[in-house]
Amino acid sequence: MSGLDTTCVTQIGILVNDIEKVRQAYSEIFQIEEPEIIETGPIEEAETNYRGKPSEARSKLCFFNFGQVQIELIQPDQHPSTWREYLDEHGEGVHHIAFVINGMKEKVMYLEGKGIPLVQEGEYDGGRYSYMDSTDNLKVLLELLENDEVS
Amino acid sequence: MSGLDTTCVTQIGILVNDIEKVRQAYSEIFQIEEPEIIETGPIEEAETNYRGKPSEARSKLCFFNFGQVQIELIQPDQHPSTWREYLDEHGEGVHHIAFVINGMKEKVMYLEGKGIPLVQEGEYDGGRYSYMDSTDNLKVLLELLENDEVS
Repeated sequence: MSGLDTTCVTQIGILVNDIEKVRQAYSEIFQIEEPEIIETGPIEEAETNYRGKPSEARSKLCFFNFGQVQIELIQPDQHPSTWREYLDEHGEGVHHIAFVINGMKEKVMYLEGKGIPLVQEGEYDGGRYSYMDSTDNLKVLLELLENDEVS
Repeated sequence: MSGLDTTCVTQIGILVNDIEKVRQAYSEIFQIEEPEIIETGPIEEAETNYRGKPSEARSKLCFFNFGQVQIELIQPDQHPSTWREYLDEHGEGVHHIAFVINGMKEKVMYLEGKGIPLVQEGEYDGGRYSYMDSTDNLKVLLELLENDEVS
């Protein structure tokens, strides 16, 4: 296998307007505990870059473990981001599917070579992400996640 | 655990207008073989029921194996169905996440008791499905799949 070197989906990202409310619904319907709500870092930490420009955008997030896959709820703020853009255009619903990869730079280049542009990137505690705008091709965005090796 | 007795997502269903084109894109980008395109059965076999009425709706489907999860591409025809309705309202994109359950009748009743109505049901070779309209609550539809036991 080459390309992304993986076909294992690890997250389904869902945009919501009210994360507390939707978290409660998942918890009640699937009878599982409510996970903690976290917030993506401020620009100094997250180094969020959206469509080639630094952005102060942040999101509230929470993660439900559904087997191999996490359901990630995302409530974005009003600053420019792929989250805010997609939510304004499409309403609440699935935004992306995520894959854990190694070698972010080459994987981003690989997808760009397939006509799938980088739309947003940033850092999180222990790794980094890139959103690739594959909606024209795959009808859903891809998120690439690269986790630092823990020694 | 009770409720659905599972939190293991097995499929991500994506509505498309041109299944050949999108299949080719997945195959090229993930460098995997193109799966066969199948069609849901005619009404005599599928016994499709949409919003309480029999429907002649059929869809072309194909399935990519992405670890625990299958990506299911769905190209519906023009007859009334949750697929056609959602595609017309929202455009191409993720329609549902699916869970394999046991005891379809009680699981449907459980979700209906949580304010999540049955919107479409039908039969496939070896089992049956129910789409539950959880978009208000969970921001994505749920599909329940029940496979016959093979003796």
